[in-house]
Amino acid sequence: MDAYSGQMTRLIQQLSQLPGIGQKTAQRLAFYIISMPEDRVESLSSAIIGAKQKIRLCSCCGNLSDSELCPICADPDRDKRTIMVVETPRDLAAYEKTQKYTGVYHVLHGAIDPQRGIGPSDIRLKELMSRLQGDVDEVIIATNSTLEGETTAMYISRLVKQAGIKVSRIASGVPVGGDLENIDEVTLLRALNGRVEL
Amino acid sequence: MDAYSGQMTRLIQQLSQLPGIGQKTAQRLAFYIISMPEDRVESLSSAIIGAKQKIRLCSCCGNLSDSELCPICADPDRDKRTIMVVETPRDLAAYEKTQKYTGVYHVLHGAIDPQRGIGPSDIRLKELMSRLQGDVDEVIIATNSTLEGETTAMYISRLVKQAGIKVSRIASGVPVGGDLENIDEVTLLRALNGRVEL
Repeated sequence: MDAYSGQMTRLIQQLSQLPGIGQKTAQRLAFYIISMPEDRVESLSSAIIGAKQKIRLCSCCGNLSDSELCPICADPDRDKRTIMVVETPRDLAAYEKTQKYTGVYHVLHGAIDPQRGIGPSDIRLKELMSRLQGDVDEVIIATNSTLEGETTAMYISRLVKQAGIKVSRIASGVPVGGDLENIDEVTLLRALNGRVEL
Repeated sequence: MDAYSGQMTRLIQQLSQLPGIGQKTAQRLAFYIISMPEDRVESLSSAIIGAKQKIRLCSCCGNLSDSELCPICADPDRDKRTIMVVETPRDLAAYEKTQKYTGVYHVLHGAIDPQRGIGPSDIRLKELMSRLQGDVDEVIIATNSTLEGETTAMYISRLVKQAGIKVSRIASGVPVGGDLENIDEVTLLRALNGRVEL
């Protein structure tokens, strides 16, 4: 038998299905939620359902958007001739946080991963290629520095080169502030090979 | 400018207001939520608002409840003559998990804390005293082993004794599985003073 009310049990159970939220955390959150003012609970509840129902992909770059074009593609100040290719909207957000990149993006929503049966046609590559029909100066490949990300970067770079467009890959090396002794050998070798003359 | 859609920003902001959920976790949860099937998102959203709107306090013991009486007070098999006094519904739930306690509870929803201006009239003490008018054999005080919990226990025990009812306090000592060297001195002394003959 449940010690709590059915509503509470249901809420705890729903929260504990979220990633990284265990039974204890779900219980703590549930108690917090029922102690919140009703208008705040309503905001939370409607933000959840609203996000699910209203968010779609930008018809141009594939970023999350409330409308046809995402805020970045719709911004006349962004340089549409430079396209940074990323795997996910979160990667895009990470670069946006730097506030230094003024070009636009292309979100693949994945990476080529033959082991899991994800091929070039399963990511938004066709959409990228059709964007290259327009005026594009450079494609910057910013897929992750993982096996899948590198495979995807290689694949895309070949296609973009064939289209006669400049293609680059973000640098890989020791993170700023990184302590050499805590960094894996592959990264250390990458950093060595990618050394720049001072 | 926001990189994400307004809906996404709103969801992340709402989630990050929950305790223990930082910006990064909120972002991770938000992305997970929009990738969930719509019916699951609806369940989550309605569990949140449902819990807030429908949960009330059991009119007898103060536990969280969907109806007039909580499942424990409504259970004819529970021994209504033994009342365990706890500070919060979470403490109640902790004892329920043991599945060994067959009496009922009384939830104070707080503890006496003069430093924060919380006196006997700010917790559900009057309700406890009126329950003692009925047939009660024993009151077990299970408030926390903190200064406030102990103060509350002392205060209640005096009142219950005056009513001519047996009153007890849960034992305090070394936790089962606890390693002596990691336990604070106060607990060690408590365990020594509370030693039982074998």
